[in-house]
Amino acid sequence: MTTFNIQPVNTVLFEDIQQKINLKTKPLGSLGQLERIAAQIALIQQTLTPELQKPHMLVYAADHGITNSGVSAFPQEVTFQMVMNFLSGGAAINVFCKQHGIEMCIADAGVNHDFPKGTPLLDLKVAKGTANFLHEAAMSEEQLQEAIEKGADQVTKAHQEGCNVVGFGEMGIGNTSAASMLMALLCKLPVAGCVGRGTGIDDPQFANKINILEQAKDFHKLSGEDPWKVLQTFGGLEIAMICGGMLKAAELGMVILVDGFISTSAFLVGYKLYPALKDYAVFCHQSDESGHRRMLEHIGAEPILNLGMRLGEGSGAAVAYPIIQSAISFLNEMASFESAGVSNKE
Amino acid sequence: MTTFNIQPVNTVLFEDIQQKINLKTKPLGSLGQLERIAAQIALIQQTLTPELQKPHMLVYAADHGITNSGVSAFPQEVTFQMVMNFLSGGAAINVFCKQHGIEMCIADAGVNHDFPKGTPLLDLKVAKGTANFLHEAAMSEEQLQEAIEKGADQVTKAHQEGCNVVGFGEMGIGNTSAASMLMALLCKLPVAGCVGRGTGIDDPQFANKINILEQAKDFHKLSGEDPWKVLQTFGGLEIAMICGGMLKAAELGMVILVDGFISTSAFLVGYKLYPALKDYAVFCHQSDESGHRRMLEHIGAEPILNLGMRLGEGSGAAVAYPIIQSAISFLNEMASFESAGVSNKE
Repeated sequence: MTTFNIQPVNTVLFEDIQQKINLKTKPLGSLGQLERIAAQIALIQQTLTPELQKPHMLVYAADHGITNSGVSAFPQEVTFQMVMNFLSGGAAINVFCKQHGIEMCIADAGVNHDFPKGTPLLDLKVAKGTANFLHEAAMSEEQLQEAIEKGADQVTKAHQEGCNVVGFGEMGIGNTSAASMLMALLCKLPVAGCVGRGTGIDDPQFANKINILEQAKDFHKLSGEDPWKVLQTFGGLEIAMICGGMLKAAELGMVILVDGFISTSAFLVGYKLYPALKDYAVFCHQSDESGHRRMLEHIGAEPILNLGMRLGEGSGAAVAYPIIQSAISFLNEMASFESAGVSNKE
Repeated sequence: MTTFNIQPVNTVLFEDIQQKINLKTKPLGSLGQLERIAAQIALIQQTLTPELQKPHMLVYAADHGITNSGVSAFPQEVTFQMVMNFLSGGAAINVFCKQHGIEMCIADAGVNHDFPKGTPLLDLKVAKGTANFLHEAAMSEEQLQEAIEKGADQVTKAHQEGCNVVGFGEMGIGNTSAASMLMALLCKLPVAGCVGRGTGIDDPQFANKINILEQAKDFHKLSGEDPWKVLQTFGGLEIAMICGGMLKAAELGMVILVDGFISTSAFLVGYKLYPALKDYAVFCHQSDESGHRRMLEHIGAEPILNLGMRLGEGSGAAVAYPIIQSAISFLNEMASFESAGVSNKE
């Protein structure tokens, strides 16, 4: 599998950054999490004056064979319908990216649909959806490799255009099932503790989802020690592309915006392989999807928002983006006690 | 005391608004708190297509006699120094208002300082600070009345300029002590449970602050049944102006952005007098100042952010503002299942 050269962030500058923050005209520590985000991004960029440039939201759509086992409230064709909705600007992620000047790119990672020629969609299709992991691995090793590389290439292209902060979104009916399996295997938790109601299934559907996923776990008998193998067995093509993209972003020293349950499951795979990935990641929100809180705890992540959102698409990352901008702005623009002539604490 | 004509929001439109939200291309309820904010503002404005117009942040500065009893980490002159910092654009609230296009107005509600002629500051000074409430009422009834009216007038002026959403900020060394007293009396809680570390006092100073405030409570022996009397006795001139401003904003059908501990204490006074005030209030963040969480719980408020901020100035309201814009944007701009040709839940 592709390897990535991910260095832990160099922390030599930390004291200087912290001092700059502490001398701003405000009580010590009074900007809370904004201060921690500012320091993190300053370290990623190795500067006392960090900047967020050309933010991108890379949204990947793919289908999941497991939907054939009835794990979702919506039919599979909603994946392609939602891609069309993205393309015409009507989805939540369109609205939030437009609000914040985030460049949004929609890619077909593996939708089970033939898009007509001329559809203004980035064609990265690896396959028309994954296989049903209840009976076989979701993808072949070659398909996984292809998805990882395509995701990494996308980020390289954005970086070449001057982007230094990138978020990842996804659309794929059935992908909470895939993410739950990644979580169960990689965090070594019982399946039932990793499963949520996705797009909104009722009690019998929920019991069925848990049952199906437990069967799948028993069928494959993976230990979880090989994150690539876990991703190949249970993942989605959109999840694999996001994972490859995040790893490449860290290699390139970019800020990574981690969205909700699905995006965090892609992060989790990369993090188990390259723990330094976390240095580059800003966790944007805690999803209302049951399991996301525990996944974030496992990673030791402190999400910015907790608004009960569970929409995916990168929507939580986009909604949180102005908060990250606020962190950068106070660091660059606020006066110091000295420059403003304000008395510091007695 | 001035009376206000505050009507509970008319909820006849609620079902239509909720239906519009439910038909957006997303799983039911999946935008969480954004959906509740969108519905609230649509009801305030009595329309299915609400808009936020000319947002204002009204920042009031005033001094507090109680600082003579050593309740704060910073000397009193920091209030006027910070006003100068606001005026030169170097404070946190300047940075965040600039980021979001919020018009910021700085007013002297009662700073213990003679600003030189020509200082570009709105002069609403009622007195050069309050009296020390350890020994006497913080202000006279006439002073309270004047502050309430001046605060209300400011909002009327903003409204006349086309503003329909208004936040309130404050600066006043010692004002967490005033806010703690309002909370203790109006929420009927022990003083110690309402007191925090303000700008950052150490353990002995913290014990002293609680001791002083308990003495003040014993001295005045108020029941807390008359919110105006509580405000007059323990409040600050900036808190009174904010209270008057919030009540006027509700009367005018504007959206009120409630900031942290101090702003919420001003809200609390208004809310006890006019419970319908809450219909117009968006609670922007939960401050790290101990007591704010309990104050919000008492009101039954659900804050948007919880970032460990405790800076005041309106900073939490300004940082949360883009989230409120996101709520409005999704309601107005997202496609519906029908218009986008997306299948709804099976």
